[in-house]
Amino acid sequence: MEERLRRQMDFALELDKEKNVFRQTHLSGHGRNENDAEHAWHMAIMAYLFREYSNEPVDITKVMLMCLIHDVVEIDAGDTYAYDKEALATQKEREERAKERIFSLLPDDQKQELMSLFDEFEAYETPESRFAHAMDNFQPVLLNDSNGGTDWTEHGVDAATVYGRQNKTKLGSEELFGVIDSIIKKNVEKGSLRSSG
Amino acid sequence: MEERLRRQMDFALELDKEKNVFRQTHLSGHGRNENDAEHAWHMAIMAYLFREYSNEPVDITKVMLMCLIHDVVEIDAGDTYAYDKEALATQKEREERAKERIFSLLPDDQKQELMSLFDEFEAYETPESRFAHAMDNFQPVLLNDSNGGTDWTEHGVDAATVYGRQNKTKLGSEELFGVIDSIIKKNVEKGSLRSSG
Repeated sequence: MEERLRRQMDFALELDKEKNVFRQTHLSGHGRNENDAEHAWHMAIMAYLFREYSNEPVDITKVMLMCLIHDVVEIDAGDTYAYDKEALATQKEREERAKERIFSLLPDDQKQELMSLFDEFEAYETPESRFAHAMDNFQPVLLNDSNGGTDWTEHGVDAATVYGRQNKTKLGSEELFGVIDSIIKKNVEKGSLRSSG
Repeated sequence: MEERLRRQMDFALELDKEKNVFRQTHLSGHGRNENDAEHAWHMAIMAYLFREYSNEPVDITKVMLMCLIHDVVEIDAGDTYAYDKEALATQKEREERAKERIFSLLPDDQKQELMSLFDEFEAYETPESRFAHAMDNFQPVLLNDSNGGTDWTEHGVDAATVYGRQNKTKLGSEELFGVIDSIIKKNVEKGSLRSSG
């Protein structure tokens, strides 16, 4: 077999491990924790379905691909919960090492392409990155809301902390931020999310 | 909230159930059974990575989207194992009903678009459909081979049956069929896949 094809297959097999990286979000119906592969799949379809709500026109193929690969580094670095301050402090360094190891399995041209797409997502500077981040933020809120906000209750986070993260959703989609905003307010009202006061 | 957005959100939440539809394939490292969402995610990235091996030029966005949604009907109809003759007899009818119910959650334009994409995948008549099917066939073989062919051993299938399915992979990618062919031969040789004789 050609070296190029063998490397592509090695990377494809390595990806499989993302199915064992579990997140804090729970599936609807008060289900089990969700894993990274499922989350990425869900985000990619949502990106396509909700693309009309992006603040700016986007290359949807690029957004979908970003969604699909944005958590690959967690194969080594693990999932860092959005509100876990200690883990957040070392996240960048852990993920940089993982990025280098995992994408290096690929032929060089594809390594460069996917790393650059990953970096673009992280940098939050292009319309595609902003809309992919909006999906990364919206998808778990949709699940959490369907479960009555129990992911928030379980971690005892407050509304200000959630807004700290979700305010950036606005950069990708004002309209979907509006939906999230009303979900946050509803959950504060019924007590599943602590108000900041 | 606008009716359109509400319907899109209902569909997005419905999709979540695909994470509870389990397949016969096992994750690498002799892991648990894989679910449909993980399988679709894996296929979509593989479609992008391996697109140079498609027999014909493809619209890769369309292929990726096909991969992402091709198992949506299994939310109602369940996974039908490729080699389960009894289940295969009722598969079409079960999946048609599911297709109508699930895609009808969407606004009409998106319902028509995704149903037509789903039908295109099923019909096996376009280059995109043929390459998406090649991914649908290649991805589980990659996992199964990494586990020493145990999915085949467990179900006692023989090589002729596997070829019956995999011969169609050739229509999407001669090159990737070549890889699968050598994996089949290796597994027959070491006894994890019964030879047809």
